[in-house]
Parts: sequence; C-alpha cells; structure tokens
Amino acid sequence: MKISQKAQECNLSPMRKFHPYAVEAVNKGKTIYHLNIGQPDIETPPAYYEAIRDFKNPVLEYAASPGMPVLIKAVQGYYEKLGIHYEESDILITTGGSEALMMLMLSILDPGSEVIIPEPFYPNYNTFVRAAGGRIHPITTSPEGGYRYAFRDKLEAAYSEHTRAIMFTNPGNPTGVVLTPEELRTIADFAKAHDLFVIGDEVYREFVYGGEKLATIGQFPELSDNAVIIDSVSKRFSACGARIGAIITRNKELQQSLLKFCQARLSVATLDQVASAALYDVGPEYFEAVRKEYKLRRDTCYKKLLEIPGVVVKDPEGAFYMMAALPVDNADTFQKWLLTDFDDNGDTVMFAPGEGFYATPGKGKNEIRIAYVLKQDKLERAMDLLALGIQKYNETHKA
Amino acid sequence: MKISQKAQECNLSPMRKFHPYAVEAVNKGKTIYHLNIGQPDIETPPAYYEAIRDFKNPVLEYAASPGMPVLIKAVQGYYEKLGIHYEESDILITTGGSEALMMLMLSILDPGSEVIIPEPFYPNYNTFVRAAGGRIHPITTSPEGGYRYAFRDKLEAAYSEHTRAIMFTNPGNPTGVVLTPEELRTIADFAKAHDLFVIGDEVYREFVYGGEKLATIGQFPELSDNAVIIDSVSKRFSACGARIGAIITRNKELQQSLLKFCQARLSVATLDQVASAALYDVGPEYFEAVRKEYKLRRDTCYKKLLEIPGVVVKDPEGAFYMMAALPVDNADTFQKWLLTDFDDNGDTVMFAPGEGFYATPGKGKNEIRIAYVLKQDKLERAMDLLALGIQKYNETHKA
Repeated sequence: MKISQKAQECNLSPMRKFHPYAVEAVNKGKTIYHLNIGQPDIETPPAYYEAIRDFKNPVLEYAASPGMPVLIKAVQGYYEKLGIHYEESDILITTGGSEALMMLMLSILDPGSEVIIPEPFYPNYNTFVRAAGGRIHPITTSPEGGYRYAFRDKLEAAYSEHTRAIMFTNPGNPTGVVLTPEELRTIADFAKAHDLFVIGDEVYREFVYGGEKLATIGQFPELSDNAVIIDSVSKRFSACGARIGAIITRNKELQQSLLKFCQARLSVATLDQVASAALYDVGPEYFEAVRKEYKLRRDTCYKKLLEIPGVVVKDPEGAFYMMAALPVDNADTFQKWLLTDFDDNGDTVMFAPGEGFYATPGKGKNEIRIAYVLKQDKLERAMDLLALGIQKYNETHKA
Repeated sequence: MKISQKAQECNLSPMRKFHPYAVEAVNKGKTIYHLNIGQPDIETPPAYYEAIRDFKNPVLEYAASPGMPVLIKAVQGYYEKLGIHYEESDILITTGGSEALMMLMLSILDPGSEVIIPEPFYPNYNTFVRAAGGRIHPITTSPEGGYRYAFRDKLEAAYSEHTRAIMFTNPGNPTGVVLTPEELRTIADFAKAHDLFVIGDEVYREFVYGGEKLATIGQFPELSDNAVIIDSVSKRFSACGARIGAIITRNKELQQSLLKFCQARLSVATLDQVASAALYDVGPEYFEAVRKEYKLRRDTCYKKLLEIPGVVVKDPEGAFYMMAALPVDNADTFQKWLLTDFDDNGDTVMFAPGEGFYATPGKGKNEIRIAYVLKQDKLERAMDLLALGIQKYNETHKA
C-alpha cells in the first residue's frame, strides 16, 4: 500500500506537536493560559439552539446539495446589508469555510498550479492547496513591516505562468492585518490584469477595531468573474462547532465546478443549516458588543507586548490574532521550555510558534501568533507570564 | 481564470438532468412516484433529537479533529457487538461517508493511480477518485450475471502497476448485491496478494434480507493493514441529514495521512456528533423492524419486476436498491418520455437511468436503478406505472 505524494507533502497541525508537553504540564498541576487556539469564548446566540429545538421533521433528510434555501437567503440578506447584491445561485453553503477552501482548490488547481498567498498565513491553506496538486507561492512579509503585503511590485514578482489565484485572509489570521481600501484596490487591479481568481477569506469580517467600514473583495464590479469569497458562521457568531460556511462567486463556470463537488458529498448537515439561518437574525448590537469586547482584549494584548523589551509588533487591526517577533533564539524551543521548565505560581502560557505559518524555510523562527480569546483578567495574566517567561528563558539560555 | 482539468473530468449528478422535466410535470399537475433517490422515509430514532435538546454548552465549540470521544466510543462499541475489536485510534469521524471517501482518495491516489471498482457503481465515486487525480478501473458486470463481480480472474485482469486499491459497496448500491463469505474471501486474497488497500463501503451493512450474518471487510486479521471501512449513520439510522460518517482502519500510516486532512478541516459538526452517539444506543429491535419493512418492499418490487415481460433482474439481496435491464431502447429517453408524454390518471414515475452508474461508455443504456424507499401501497402503484409505461412507450416508439 502506498500513501499519495500529496498527502506526504501535507503537515500535521503545527500546534499539535506541543500537545504532549501540555498534557504533561497539566498532569504536574500547572495551569496553562491558552493563547494558541482561535476558539472564541463568546456565547453562541441562543437563536441557534432555539431553532434546533423547534425542528420537528421526524425524518432527518438530506438537504439540497447547494444548501438550504432558508440559509442561502439569510446569507444573501446579510450581503444586501453590506450593500452588495448576490443572486441566490451565487451562494453555495459548505461544511465550514474549510470545505469551501477544499472545493475551491480542487476546482482551480492542476498539478503544478500556484496560488499567491502572503506569509505568514493560515497553515491549513497549505493542505488544501497541496491536496489539489498545487503549491503556495508566498509573498514574504515581516514584523517590522507590520506584515503588510499589498504592494504591486511584490505581487508582480510572485506572478508566473503557473499562477491561478491570489488568496488572503482579511482581516488577517495570523497577523491581524486589515487591508486598506487602497490595498484592496491594488490586489483587485493585479488580479484583473492577470485574469486571476482573487480569493478573499473573509470569515473575520466583523472583527475590525479602527472604525473601518466592513470591506470585501466582492465590492468591485469589474471583478465579477474573478472574485471568490470564503465565508463562515464560525467566528461571526461564535458558532465554530456548527461547521457552516459558504463560497460566494458570480463566476458561472466556477459555480458549475463547485456544484459537482457539492453534489458528490450530497449535502451539508440539515439542522446546522436551519440553526445557522436563525443566527443571521441577530441585530447589529450583537456585533457591536462582540467588537467592543475584542477591541479591549486587542488593546490589552498590544499594550502589554509593547512593554516587553525587544518585542517587535505593529498595531494589529483586526481578527483576534496578532503576530509578533520575540527576543528569543527560537520560539519553538521557548514554547517547549515554557511547558517543561517554567511556571509562575503554577501558571504558564501557550501560543502558536511562528514557523508553521510560513512556507519559506527558516522564516518565523522567533515569531509567535497570539489568539486573544481569553477574558480580560486572564489575558493580562497570560501576557505577564509571557513577559516573565521571556526574561527567565533568556537568563537561562544566555547563562 | 481556468477551471482545473480534474474538475472538468467530474460530472454533475446523473439524476439531476431530469429535474427540469420533473418540475414541469409537477407544474402540469402530475404526481411523480420517486424511485430515483436513496432518501429513506423511516423515522429517525427520537434519541437523536433528544440528545440535541439536552445539549447545554453555551458556546458551540470546535470538536476534536479526529472526532468526539463519545461518538468514537459508540462506533467502537457497535463493532465490538459484530465481534470485531478496533482501538479508538483506528476510528476517525467524518462529515458523512462522503468526506471519508474524499479524504481516503486524497491519501492514497497520485495522478494516474487506479482504483478497481465493479460497475455499475455509486456515481460519486468517480468525483472522489478524479478529485484526487486518479481514475476508476471498472470490473464490468451484467444484469444477466446478477451484477456479481468477485471472481479472481476478473480481479486479476483489472490489476496493473497503477492499481492502489479495490473498492466496493457491500451491500451494493446500485445493484443490491451482497457478497457471500466466499466472494469476500476472494477479494481479500486478491488485495493481500497485490498489497492493495481494500475499501469496503459498508454503509448499508444492516440492510440484508436473506438471513445473512452481517459481514465486513474488517473481519480478516491478515488484512489488518489493507482494510479500510467507510461507514455512516445516514442509512443505518435514517439520519442522512446528520452528515456523520467514519473511516476505520488499523493502517497507522494511512491514519496519519487521514489525520492531516481531518486537522485541516478542523472538526465535524459538534451537535450532530453528540446526537449520532445517542443513535448507537438503539436496540436490535430497531434494526429488525427496519429490515422487515425493507424486505417487504424488496419482495414487492422484485415480484412486480419479474411480472413485466422482457425485464432482466436477479434476486437483489441487500441495501435498498435494485438494478434491472428494461425492454426499452434507451432508459434516458424512456425516463424523459415518462415525465413529458406519459401519465396514468395523472401519475407517473421516476427512477435513475443506468448509464450514469457505469464508467465504460455505452454500458447501462437500457438499465435502471430503483430505490425502494416508498411505503408498500405507493411502491405497488409505482411499479404498476413502470410496467404500463414500458408497454405504452414501446407501442409509441415501435409505431
């Protein structure tokens, strides 16, 4: 029996390798403050559970392959409020943004095809691209440059005959970068010039903290055939376990291809679709409250980081992540040490080491991603542990 | 923008092309008896809905990537009752059997790799195999031969250096064929001899009508590394809309590869997993009642088919499908005619034309798949409509 080449080229989660050390630390009685995972602690709107309790069909049947009309209409209505009109046939419901990404890559990549993606990026992009036989062509960014990537010269340098698409998370995971209108325009012009798909993974759209207007790659009429939006209820409504996403495009040929994959997997879970449709009824006050809460956390995190000598970080504007360079030799070694050799009154901290977010070998070694998904008091403690950890680690490792 | 070669090689659902004609027929006031889709009408056990109503976690969180322990243990317990021990780490929970098939194909197929599959087969196999860059090498069977395929000489003839696996649905969709212990042994020996993965899509396991012992490709100790089972709650518990499946294998290297894809898509829907675990608590009386009901339908369908002059069909033993050759020139044309030109007191009937179940061009043109998922009285009427339709169609088309 043989395992496929593409599967061999995929990686296990970069976060996972510290799991055994975390288990050991907990077994020794340590408390771990988790800044390593993007699981929000915000309550899921009760409308979700109410809709499921109200479901009365005695047979739990397959839903339609493109998605249930009630949910498609809810997504359509959400975009209408953003000022963008999509036909119902432009929207396909998927099992999370993850399935949307997988179907999209299978639809547009041949062996050897390339997708331009700024690095650091969401590590699972690599698996979806590899699974489809393609590869990521990274645009390398830096902590000093605030991880910004939308420069025409950088984009052009990444382009080749193999390029099929440019893809980015906006607001950004892991960097927190939010594209300015000018940057979005730069990417749009680039995609149009080379006839590329331009894929906006916009699952964090509501999580912007500088008063920015909610932006989307779907707002450019001239990109009607190029633009593809990856969407999800996971972060928007703190409903990660629903596994409900969507892929939105006006490109008819792409829709037809995506539909083949939708039909092959028959349907998306029925109850989760019904319940997710109900989520779209929450009012703007819900988003306002959530945004306020995350902004407070962002501010706390950012302020604390600026106080640590030697840390490089620039104003993270969105999502609930920030990326920073630490004054340590190696973030992997440091993370392991925090779990095995460090504690402060029994407490320690976990983040996601940066290397797993880069495609370029050697990049990100002294960087980390912080997910600010803890409540204020816990977040402050976590950041103090990070500061103390850096100090002690460097004392030990310089000795 | 370009659509990938592999997406172009996939097909839309062969059932779908009659949808516009069906809509038109309904608009004209016709009643359609649907024998074309495998959506059971059996009630989902109430335990499913009860478990969901009892779920109290205010945040709907991601589940663990390999599946929730409560569901993995339930699947493990189910196999223990069949007399087969699996470790928890041998079981991965997937979004339906469909996702299990997709991840499996991505894990074992390189461009040009082949999977041996008896034809007629479940049409979505083609999409999963193509998506992974591979192709199906069919073993052609016939209505006269009762669609049986497990002959060593036929298997050997299909083998080449490109073969990575042999896959089959047992009990069979679309044929209803249930492998005998000897046939299962023949396939096992073939797979072992050539070091192939042997993939049993066993989602219809409980649906056998000849008093056969429940069989699985997992029962051969010597195939420990070769055997892969595709499983699902969809048919077993009439819970198609749950989208809960599983992939079961003791092959550690394969498990490791599958886990990469599990991690990339983060998790399977949380509530559906919790509720599906509760389904496994139903007793043997549930399966007995369901089996009795389907056996009655199978008998009705089979008896009625035998009474139609010129139909070729042999004793379908399992699942809830049967395949038959009709005395018509073309089952596609006949199906269209049934919707546009035929009715009996306003009633007509739909089945799935056979061609879409074959990989070999030209095969299956006069065959159909019948899904006997209607209650007894409706099923009798549907079969009478089929008989009358054949008679009238041939009168018209010979005239």
